[in-house]
Amino acid sequence: MIIHMTKNAAPANVEAVFRRIKAKGFGYEVIHGTTGINVIGVLGDLSGVEESYFAELDSVEKVVRISKPYKRISRQYAEGAKLCEKETRRIRVGRAVIGGPDLVIMAGPCSLESAEQVAAITRYVSELGIPILRGGAYKPRASPYSFQGLGLRGLRMLDRARSRYGLRIVTEATGLHHHVNADGVPEKKNVLENVIEHSDIVQVGARNMKSYGFLQELAAATKRTRKPVLLKRGDSSTLEEFLLAAEYVVASGNPNVMLCLRGIRAFEETKFQRYTADIGAIPVLKRECNLPVIFDPSHATGYRDSVGAISLAAVAAGADGLLIETHNCPAEALCDGEQSVTRAQLARIKKEAEKIRRTVCRG
Amino acid sequence: MIIHMTKNAAPANVEAVFRRIKAKGFGYEVIHGTTGINVIGVLGDLSGVEESYFAELDSVEKVVRISKPYKRISRQYAEGAKLCEKETRRIRVGRAVIGGPDLVIMAGPCSLESAEQVAAITRYVSELGIPILRGGAYKPRASPYSFQGLGLRGLRMLDRARSRYGLRIVTEATGLHHHVNADGVPEKKNVLENVIEHSDIVQVGARNMKSYGFLQELAAATKRTRKPVLLKRGDSSTLEEFLLAAEYVVASGNPNVMLCLRGIRAFEETKFQRYTADIGAIPVLKRECNLPVIFDPSHATGYRDSVGAISLAAVAAGADGLLIETHNCPAEALCDGEQSVTRAQLARIKKEAEKIRRTVCRG
Amino acid sequence: MIIHMTKNAAPANVEAVFRRIKAKGFGYEVIHGTTGINVIGVLGDLSGVEESYFAELDSVEKVVRISKPYKRISRQYAEGAKLCEKETRRIRVGRAVIGGPDLVIMAGPCSLESAEQVAAITRYVSELGIPILRGGAYKPRASPYSFQGLGLRGLRMLDRARSRYGLRIVTEATGLHHHVNADGVPEKKNVLENVIEHSDIVQVGARNMKSYGFLQELAAATKRTRKPVLLKRGDSSTLEEFLLAAEYVVASGNPNVMLCLRGIRAFEETKFQRYTADIGAIPVLKRECNLPVIFDPSHATGYRDSVGAISLAAVAAGADGLLIETHNCPAEALCDGEQSVTRAQLARIKKEAEKIRRTVCRG
Amino acid sequence: MIIHMTKNAAPANVEAVFRRIKAKGFGYEVIHGTTGINVIGVLGDLSGVEESYFAELDSVEKVVRISKPYKRISRQYAEGAKLCEKETRRIRVGRAVIGGPDLVIMAGPCSLESAEQVAAITRYVSELGIPILRGGAYKPRASPYSFQGLGLRGLRMLDRARSRYGLRIVTEATGLHHHVNADGVPEKKNVLENVIEHSDIVQVGARNMKSYGFLQELAAATKRTRKPVLLKRGDSSTLEEFLLAAEYVVASGNPNVMLCLRGIRAFEETKFQRYTADIGAIPVLKRECNLPVIFDPSHATGYRDSVGAISLAAVAAGADGLLIETHNCPAEALCDGEQSVTRAQLARIKKEAEKIRRTVCRG
Repeated sequence: MIIHMTKNAAPANVEAVFRRIKAKGFGYEVIHGTTGINVIGVLGDLSGVEESYFAELDSVEKVVRISKPYKRISRQYAEGAKLCEKETRRIRVGRAVIGGPDLVIMAGPCSLESAEQVAAITRYVSELGIPILRGGAYKPRASPYSFQGLGLRGLRMLDRARSRYGLRIVTEATGLHHHVNADGVPEKKNVLENVIEHSDIVQVGARNMKSYGFLQELAAATKRTRKPVLLKRGDSSTLEEFLLAAEYVVASGNPNVMLCLRGIRAFEETKFQRYTADIGAIPVLKRECNLPVIFDPSHATGYRDSVGAISLAAVAAGADGLLIETHNCPAEALCDGEQSVTRAQLARIKKEAEKIRRTVCRG
Repeated sequence: MIIHMTKNAAPANVEAVFRRIKAKGFGYEVIHGTTGINVIGVLGDLSGVEESYFAELDSVEKVVRISKPYKRISRQYAEGAKLCEKETRRIRVGRAVIGGPDLVIMAGPCSLESAEQVAAITRYVSELGIPILRGGAYKPRASPYSFQGLGLRGLRMLDRARSRYGLRIVTEATGLHHHVNADGVPEKKNVLENVIEHSDIVQVGARNMKSYGFLQELAAATKRTRKPVLLKRGDSSTLEEFLLAAEYVVASGNPNVMLCLRGIRAFEETKFQRYTADIGAIPVLKRECNLPVIFDPSHATGYRDSVGAISLAAVAAGADGLLIETHNCPAEALCDGEQSVTRAQLARIKKEAEKIRRTVCRG
Repeated sequence: MIIHMTKNAAPANVEAVFRRIKAKGFGYEVIHGTTGINVIGVLGDLSGVEESYFAELDSVEKVVRISKPYKRISRQYAEGAKLCEKETRRIRVGRAVIGGPDLVIMAGPCSLESAEQVAAITRYVSELGIPILRGGAYKPRASPYSFQGLGLRGLRMLDRARSRYGLRIVTEATGLHHHVNADGVPEKKNVLENVIEHSDIVQVGARNMKSYGFLQELAAATKRTRKPVLLKRGDSSTLEEFLLAAEYVVASGNPNVMLCLRGIRAFEETKFQRYTADIGAIPVLKRECNLPVIFDPSHATGYRDSVGAISLAAVAAGADGLLIETHNCPAEALCDGEQSVTRAQLARIKKEAEKIRRTVCRG
Repeated sequence: MIIHMTKNAAPANVEAVFRRIKAKGFGYEVIHGTTGINVIGVLGDLSGVEESYFAELDSVEKVVRISKPYKRISRQYAEGAKLCEKETRRIRVGRAVIGGPDLVIMAGPCSLESAEQVAAITRYVSELGIPILRGGAYKPRASPYSFQGLGLRGLRMLDRARSRYGLRIVTEATGLHHHVNADGVPEKKNVLENVIEHSDIVQVGARNMKSYGFLQELAAATKRTRKPVLLKRGDSSTLEEFLLAAEYVVASGNPNVMLCLRGIRAFEETKFQRYTADIGAIPVLKRECNLPVIFDPSHATGYRDSVGAISLAAVAAGADGLLIETHNCPAEALCDGEQSVTRAQLARIKKEAEKIRRTVCRG
């Protein structure tokens, strides 16, 4: 960490910096310039120290961290290597390997609605050779008056999809609360417990990316099994915050984390784009860490007509997988129908995206 | 709700809209224009219906909601009335009345650090006539390696501040998890339970504004006592999402909600502004709902040198209260020292802000 | 245009709306609902009328435009058609056809620096089979103390590249002012005149997208020749504003406009991304208008290491061309060296991007 | 300027940095740490050197500028001084002194529409004791089909307001083009020439803040008279870009610049806020430079109902002046009627804002 002092910093203020450095057991070196430039380089392992520990002192102009604040997930970036070839952590889920050379598609309805709907979608997802089924049983909804998901009853539908078609399941754990069903009765186990029990990949939604206590309990609860976690980026989180949220899970005991981008909030017109597709983040995440990167084109765009183009773009930029909402009858969806693709669209996306994966991954 | 159909919508698609309307038991009226304009007005109580219920149908161009999606907190806006005079819900906390004519300041350290620190700050907060002490025992930190708060031990320090000086306490509940202390032992009760037990106002942080299951459990747990809730705006939440989050708490049984603005994430340079102070939201919230509005100038700016100016601005714009970070020795703070004001700055802000409150509130 | 009145709008206010409608010679139809819903549909050609013409009237809640405000560039969107196949305006520049089935790459230095630099880059751009050379002679720089470009002297270097290698030239016209050279002498002609004289495509930079008077003079000056215009999106312009800026040029007489995306300003960390790559805008522009879409991955990311991935992503999303900064020795560039790719990187991007173009365009 | 090298930077790369430093005639000092930290402090006057001059070299991790890139407008910030008391450049316009202890209000219509409208508004602006009239003769409009302003005919109406009531005039120069009037005939002089001739303060709009060539011609044309310039912040410009744009004008010969904030583009809902009021920028600009700061609450909010609250907030935060849109009959305005206040609202804003100015400025 490098500390820049203001011009003409009082000796007492410089001393205060030295005291803080020594208080933590670090060494330091100083540079004095003829024009009054004063820089102090702090020496030692500073991963547990924040910039503000120094920045809040008087006469400190700026503190620059040289080492990354996320350590367990960082990549020794091999210049020139193809991003998909080396060093990405591979996470196996059933027959799929996420982070390997093959693109992995996860698809399914936004929210589980009925046994018929789940059966219909499951069937064609399976027929298309897609290995992982998505589907929300617990739905975080902006309005308290909106449909909040089928809860445990929905999870059991996913179990049937697994046993019948061999599909693996990714579904969201929205917290540590006890879901109250439509009949007003709370479920016996909390949401996290239920989701861990019934899923193959535990999804953490964008709204919970910064629920750090929740991330820690999730990691503790999956520490032994290392059940994979799909962590979505908060819609206004910086990439550093995103990487640190993953670091929370890894540092708390579960290394099997995949990062999922799903669009950020910018000034775009919602009639055209619900969120701003953060494709630009893909190569950055690939450079900064060794976790697989998944892209969710459904939330990132908000409109079915953009899902195909953005799916291909994400894969071209290096995404290892796609998380796509599909519906047997989008116009009848209880939630997010506008962004769900049909079976035919899904089939075409899969075919073209795999072709592009081969182009970018094997040259 | 008004449904706009695309030009030349197929009769089957128009029929599909009618079917959905009737399925919910609503009535409707249609307008046909000579240039093919087709608009369908849906008649009935549509508070439980989302725009997307119709928008996802084929040939629907746009759906416009006429009624507000938040009902319990909405204001019958009296044109010309002074915003501070009428119709704001008043929430009493000890001797303070939030939402009444007087400005209410809440101040204290970002995070509770030690008995000495809390004692020193409590004393001067009390001496300045500030009725409510803030202080974080559970700290949501971006890095898993940062200081995570004193937990229950911190809450007990707040109890002493209450009993010794009569101060009321606002502190954050970060979730339903069990906080693990520095010694690695989890606390017996979960964070929410502990905070409810030891606080006078339960703060929900910006990171949890969309943890809807948590909001529902919080409301259920405070339904009987109606212990006030201070709900912070998520840093990228829209105002509609913010109002709906408040509606969650109110609809789940606790009407004593105050809205707290704390800056939004925009493109500003962090060397100048950590967040973008969302002062512009104050008159909007005042028009849209009847809840008191608090402003947090410390997080909204991120720098001590801006806290004074932005405190005054928030009060001038109509805020009912301020939530300010202060530290007896900002340079020694374990967290957010850069944005904590000193005792002298706090005294001056209080004096000038109260003067401005009188100007805007009593003319 | 559909006008939504507030509940219980006074008859006088409704009358005021009718008067405004009639004042423009339009017809209207009204819908009255049992719960007080009042909607007025305005009938006629409303392209010259803004929403605010009605929105500013009392008791008007919302005004919804049904027809697009941009007419000359709009696409009769053929559902199911491949975006690259049909209806995109094709603009021929030398042997390149922009908007046709083949991807068109434009590459060159950010800024023209010296005859040697231009010669070196021109040579390898030509050898790689890239038909269009980019290079800035007039540079909009944030600081008045930065290098402002070689001006006319730079334009003449571009002329040599054209005559020697047959490359066509795209370069930016920064305004109607007279560029002052390093020796303090202003050029005889203004910047627009010089650029029109020496370029094959006139680039309008992001900073000038809303200089509407400039756009009109540019269109007037190129009306006869229809010299193509490459219009960059302003970094905070909405897509509607972008499309309307193109409409300005087309409406003023020059239909040969290509839209160029170059990243928007959001909250991303500049150490990772200078701008946020607006790949999501590509399918939207393709749906909304019939102009070719170019993507500038250099400015959209700001870092050489991301340029490759984002180039491929843009093509996968449907971009018709790429505008890439390259430098024979990026570390010696006078401007934007960090985002310039080397010859080897450019060669690889070209190869892979063309492969992807074939995948998305010919299935 | 401080250069941070990556860990284990190759000696050749370090040498390359030294060469660049020496090439500009600067000195340097180096710090070597035991953990491989390498920092190079560059010594000399670096105002003409950009960070990228070094950043683009290999193995350079980060470049930190210690001195400000804007020099002529920077403030020797006197700690503890009231911002309004000292060191702000005072700009006299008629009887008003902008940057002095008194708040200066500028008010008038968004756009000049007719002699009657201008006369009516001028009269009450004058009666309210407001010294400066605003009003747009050249209007930058998003659509080519919208009303583009009365041009020179409008400027002449402003002349009459000046001669009859002694009001001073601020109006926007939209560029160097020749305005084409409704009859299709271009004006003889270009817009800048006309505006300089007929105004007392030349306004540069947000859309032109980065038209650097235009700023230079404006400064050159007003160098002798030092006619004040009101420079609006671009809606996505950083504060550093804004300050550098002001530096362009000052460095080109006209020191009489006032900075005008008018809202930035963020993700806010346009039904509530057209732009995000950037009140937080006021104390930052006050610290960073010595120019007066004006706030435009009309564009910053977009809605009449918010203009009062945000006017007061801006003054409380330290703004030296307000630029307010007012209309004798907002519902009849040809442009921006929704954000124009009435005479009664303007009178009340003036009274309360002046009271707040006294509170913050004289304690």
